[in-house]
Amino acid sequence: MEKANEMKPKEIRKLIRNQEITGPTAGMANGFTQANLVVLKKEHAFDFLLFCQRNPRSCPLLDVTEAGSFHPLKMAREADIRKDIPKYRIYKDGVYTEEVLDITEYWKDDMVGFLIGCSFTFETPLLENGIPIQHIEENCNVPMYRTNIACEKSGLFEGPTVVSMRPMSPQDAIRATQITSRFPAVHGAPIHVGDPSQIGITDISKPDFGDSVTIKENEVPVFWACGVTPQAVAIESKPLIMITHAPGHMLISDVKDEAFSVL
Amino acid sequence: MEKANEMKPKEIRKLIRNQEITGPTAGMANGFTQANLVVLKKEHAFDFLLFCQRNPRSCPLLDVTEAGSFHPLKMAREADIRKDIPKYRIYKDGVYTEEVLDITEYWKDDMVGFLIGCSFTFETPLLENGIPIQHIEENCNVPMYRTNIACEKSGLFEGPTVVSMRPMSPQDAIRATQITSRFPAVHGAPIHVGDPSQIGITDISKPDFGDSVTIKENEVPVFWACGVTPQAVAIESKPLIMITHAPGHMLISDVKDEAFSVL
Repeated sequence: MEKANEMKPKEIRKLIRNQEITGPTAGMANGFTQANLVVLKKEHAFDFLLFCQRNPRSCPLLDVTEAGSFHPLKMAREADIRKDIPKYRIYKDGVYTEEVLDITEYWKDDMVGFLIGCSFTFETPLLENGIPIQHIEENCNVPMYRTNIACEKSGLFEGPTVVSMRPMSPQDAIRATQITSRFPAVHGAPIHVGDPSQIGITDISKPDFGDSVTIKENEVPVFWACGVTPQAVAIESKPLIMITHAPGHMLISDVKDEAFSVL
Repeated sequence: MEKANEMKPKEIRKLIRNQEITGPTAGMANGFTQANLVVLKKEHAFDFLLFCQRNPRSCPLLDVTEAGSFHPLKMAREADIRKDIPKYRIYKDGVYTEEVLDITEYWKDDMVGFLIGCSFTFETPLLENGIPIQHIEENCNVPMYRTNIACEKSGLFEGPTVVSMRPMSPQDAIRATQITSRFPAVHGAPIHVGDPSQIGITDISKPDFGDSVTIKENEVPVFWACGVTPQAVAIESKPLIMITHAPGHMLISDVKDEAFSVL
């Protein structure tokens, strides 16, 4: 098999659709933007759209499908959001019930798909600037944490902001702030740096999603708002049904990362 | 007397020239750029110019006078750099010998004046973004420290980078990194954030120049390269004579701060 980091998005999506790839997508189709997925019934779509609009750091919207359509026309017009993500999570009444490889059997004609920007997009320019990324070096999922930073409520949607964390030297944290500020559509600048307890994280070695990574001496944890936020929100908000990607298992789009740089 | 923060640069320079103002210039002629001064004999001018070119973070050059001329034509064409700074320091053979209010008696026809960007320029946009600046609140001089970050050598000029420090919440430190990145001509982004010992500062409560300020709980120290660096360099490099401004006592130019924003 060709190396996944050098493959085209369409080729990888095909392998995912055939369930030949079922793991995290970090590093695949290098240079192409990956996206978080939220699927909701149309009756909740307006409130969730407003929720994204009110919480642009954690929920920057990249694409919204027409009700009943499973093709995200802006990001990957040939993709099928029911099948082209390696792993999905089903939430019923705010309870995470199962992880599945395909959501066709859950799909209804009144469902709307939301694609939300993902911090993987800014990892390419970070690496190109010589900033090491620990979860890539350790070949695991980025650590993610619930914080005490409340999202702005919209309808039934409310809950805590989830953050992803990358440990860095202070110099790299400054450079990473500059670089990620150029990418507001994929969470933009960090929302916190340093002491985790200031944002309500009591144990940095125990992420709520993803994997724990080493923080070296002389490194500080740097936190970005994360597209997994809707999953924490789903738990508090209890929509009848909500389907999301599994953390780290993203939709690989046909749009280049650099398309989201504002400078 | 009119308030110094609302006065025009030319009016303030006149009061300074008449020695009616002899203290620090922070907050005066609000919105106009202030500059650090270095005066050297022409024989050292090339090496120092190259030193600035090699160390743009600490020594961003705003203006260089013709040998023997005391008018900085780009920054304040009517100013006299021998008289229009409230306080100067004289260094002979690397030894700081005295502080004076006027350097006319030291001035020679083969002297060159260098104006170097000052972090006061980015304090205005920081304040406008709602970021409190502790040394302004405490009405004292910004704290400055020698670090273990060596400047790049040029001829006889070598020595440590001096930094200015502003304590901030982590959120403000992130926003301040964005704002100051827009001002590369006045030191640009921070060069360090957090643990002072990582850049060789052993006691944050004892600055090498300026005054100590309070660091509140939940605040981190944020460090910018500082135009006082040439004074630390003068001590190590021992030029026959070097004249500088006294820390915090700057030349007030006719150029607006915003002229140095690159975005």
